[in-house]
Amino acid sequence: MKMALDLAENGRGYTSPNPVVGAVVVKDETVVGKGWHRAVGTAHAEVNALTDAGKAAEGATIYVTLEPCHHYGRTPPCTERILSAGIRRVVIAVADPNPNVTGGGADYLQQQGLEVTIGVCENAARQQNEAFFRFIRTGRPFVILKCASTLDGRIASRTGDSKWVTGPASRQYVHELRHAADGIMVGIGTVKADNPSLTTRLEGKNGVDPHRIILDTRLSIPEDVKVLQAESISDTIIVFNKSDDLEKPERLAKKGVELVHAPLKDGWIDLSAVMDILGRRNITSLLIEGGSRVMGSALRAGIADKICFFYAPKILGGDDGIPVCSGPGPELMAGSIPVDNISVRQFDEDVLITGYLGYASPAND
Amino acid sequence: MKMALDLAENGRGYTSPNPVVGAVVVKDETVVGKGWHRAVGTAHAEVNALTDAGKAAEGATIYVTLEPCHHYGRTPPCTERILSAGIRRVVIAVADPNPNVTGGGADYLQQQGLEVTIGVCENAARQQNEAFFRFIRTGRPFVILKCASTLDGRIASRTGDSKWVTGPASRQYVHELRHAADGIMVGIGTVKADNPSLTTRLEGKNGVDPHRIILDTRLSIPEDVKVLQAESISDTIIVFNKSDDLEKPERLAKKGVELVHAPLKDGWIDLSAVMDILGRRNITSLLIEGGSRVMGSALRAGIADKICFFYAPKILGGDDGIPVCSGPGPELMAGSIPVDNISVRQFDEDVLITGYLGYASPAND
Repeated sequence: MKMALDLAENGRGYTSPNPVVGAVVVKDETVVGKGWHRAVGTAHAEVNALTDAGKAAEGATIYVTLEPCHHYGRTPPCTERILSAGIRRVVIAVADPNPNVTGGGADYLQQQGLEVTIGVCENAARQQNEAFFRFIRTGRPFVILKCASTLDGRIASRTGDSKWVTGPASRQYVHELRHAADGIMVGIGTVKADNPSLTTRLEGKNGVDPHRIILDTRLSIPEDVKVLQAESISDTIIVFNKSDDLEKPERLAKKGVELVHAPLKDGWIDLSAVMDILGRRNITSLLIEGGSRVMGSALRAGIADKICFFYAPKILGGDDGIPVCSGPGPELMAGSIPVDNISVRQFDEDVLITGYLGYASPAND
Repeated sequence: MKMALDLAENGRGYTSPNPVVGAVVVKDETVVGKGWHRAVGTAHAEVNALTDAGKAAEGATIYVTLEPCHHYGRTPPCTERILSAGIRRVVIAVADPNPNVTGGGADYLQQQGLEVTIGVCENAARQQNEAFFRFIRTGRPFVILKCASTLDGRIASRTGDSKWVTGPASRQYVHELRHAADGIMVGIGTVKADNPSLTTRLEGKNGVDPHRIILDTRLSIPEDVKVLQAESISDTIIVFNKSDDLEKPERLAKKGVELVHAPLKDGWIDLSAVMDILGRRNITSLLIEGGSRVMGSALRAGIADKICFFYAPKILGGDDGIPVCSGPGPELMAGSIPVDNISVRQFDEDVLITGYLGYASPAND
C-alpha cells in the first residue's frame, strides 16, 4: 500500500477534480503491475495497474489507495475491470467519500466473491487527498494559507520590499504547492506591490498553472500587470463588488479575464460566498498567498483549512514592516485560532511550519 | 570524548564564570574514571576524574573537554595532578581560549613526555561553552534573545495578554535557559505588563536563579512588583539613567536592589555600555526575555549573539497584537539581520527555532 500511495503522487496536479490514486497488483509476493491515475478523463489507477499486470493479474491481490468506482463516469467502472481480470483479493486504503457511492464498490466486489479489506494506511490515504475529501464533504475548496516571513513575523519591509524573504529551495516548493492547487488567490494589494505572474514554474517537470483569483473589491487593478497578460491555459478570475469605471469590466473581459461579482461583508468581499462560487467551478483546492489583508480576512472568515508558513533566517527588527496578518485581532491570547497537527520541515535555512486550523484536521472528513 | 562532553553538562548552571568541563580516564579500552567541574571554586573535571580512577590512572589516557589549566587559581594546576597520577596520554577537545593561557597546559604536558592531542570534537566543545568563549574574547556576556510568539509573530494580544503563548514543555525549557544563564534581562514594560518573578523554577533539580536585570530608563518601576520582593541568592539590578523621584534610588537600595546608572543613546539606555558593565561583573551569559522594545533595541545595538524563538501553534490574526520587535526597521528586506546555523526543535506542538546572529557563530571564537 505504501508503494501505491507513492505511485499516486505521480498524478499530483493533473487529476483535479479527481483525487490522486495509486494501485499495485501483487501475486505470490511479487509486484506484477503498477499504475496510477495520470490525469482527469483518463484511465483510473486500477485499470492502469491491471493493464500493466496483464495475465499475471489472474488470482492476484490488488492494493488501491481509494475504493474502486462502481459507476459509469468519464470511464467505465473499475469494479468490472477488477472482476474480468480475475483478481482474487482487493485491499483498499480508504472508502470513497462520496455519500452516494461510499462502500458501493467494495460491497459489490465482496458480493462477487472477492476478499475485500478496507482501511489499510487509511490516515495516510486521507491526508494524501485531503483537498478532495474536504471538497466532497463541503462543496468548497480546501484552503491553504501560504506565507513567508522573517523570524519576527514580517512579510515585507516598511517600504513593501519582499524580494526575497525565503531562499530558492522554499520558493521552488511554493511552485509545487501551486502545481498541486486548482486555484491561487491574492489580494489586489499584492498584485499592485509585487506584480506577480502567479504561474507555476517547476524545474524538470511540466507544472500546471492554477487558476489565478484576485480579490479586488473596487476593480482597481492596473490593466498592465503581469497577471492580466499571462499566457496560460488556466483562467484569471477577478472577484469584485463594484467598478467605478463602468467600461473596465468589458475591457478586462475582452482580454480573456473572467469577472465574478461577489457580495460584501463588513465592507470587504465576503470570502465565504467566494468559496461557494469557487466550489461550484470545481476548484477543489485553493492556495492563498497573501498579503496581510487577505490572510487576516481568510482567518476571520473561518475559510482556511491549512497553513504553510515559511520562516526565513533573518530578523527585520522593527514594528513597521508588513505583518503576516492585518485587521483586528482578539482581545485575549485565548481568543487566538488554534493550529493542530503541527509539522516542521527545513528548506536550507528556511523553516516551514504546517498545521491544520482546528476543525480542519484530515481525520475529520 | 562524547562521554566527557555529556559529563560536562552536569555542571551546567553551577560553574560560571568558569566553563563546564568533563573528563574521562580510560585504560585498556575501559573507563576507569569520570568527573566534571561541579561548581565554581571546587575541583576541576580532571581532578575529579583522576580521583575517581585512583591507582588505575597509572599509564592511562585522559579525555578532557577543555585544555587543562597550568596555573594556580582557586585550585592548584591540573597539569601537575595529571603528571602525578601517571597519565600517559592526554586528549583535549579544545584549547583554553584565554590568550595568556592557551596552549600552555598542553605544551607543558608534552614537554614532560606525555602524548598530547588537541582538537577532538572541537566544534561540539566550543558550542558547549559558547558563552564562556565569547565572554573571554570580548569581556561581555553572550546574549541570547528569547521570545515566544504566535505563528503570525505576536507575543501578546492587543490588550497585552500573553498567558499563555507557548505550552508547559516550552516554558520548562525556558527555565533551563534561565538556570544556565548568569543574568536575565527584561524591559520595564514587561515588568509592568506581566509582573514576572524572573526566577528559575525547574522540576526535579535545584535551579539557579540568574541575576535579574531590569532596564528602566526613568526608574518608573512600581515598588510592589514581584521582582523586587524575590527571595533569591542572586541580585536584582535596575539599570536606569535618571530618577524623577530623588528618594526612590535610596528606597530601592534599602530593599537590597542594586542600581546601576547607564548612559543614554538615542533617548534609550545604551545597551552596548550596559554589556560592558555586566561583563565587568562576570556575567558571562545573558538571557533577554523581552518585550518588543528591548528585543528591537538589542538587535539594533548589535549586542545579541543567539536567538531562541518559540512559535506556538496558534494565530492571533490581526495587526494590533504586540509584535516580536518594536522600533524602526530597515527600508529593504536586504537590510534585515541574517541568522545563521538555524536549528529546529519541537516541544509538544511548539516549535523552537535557534540560530546565531551573523558574526556570532561559535566557530568564530
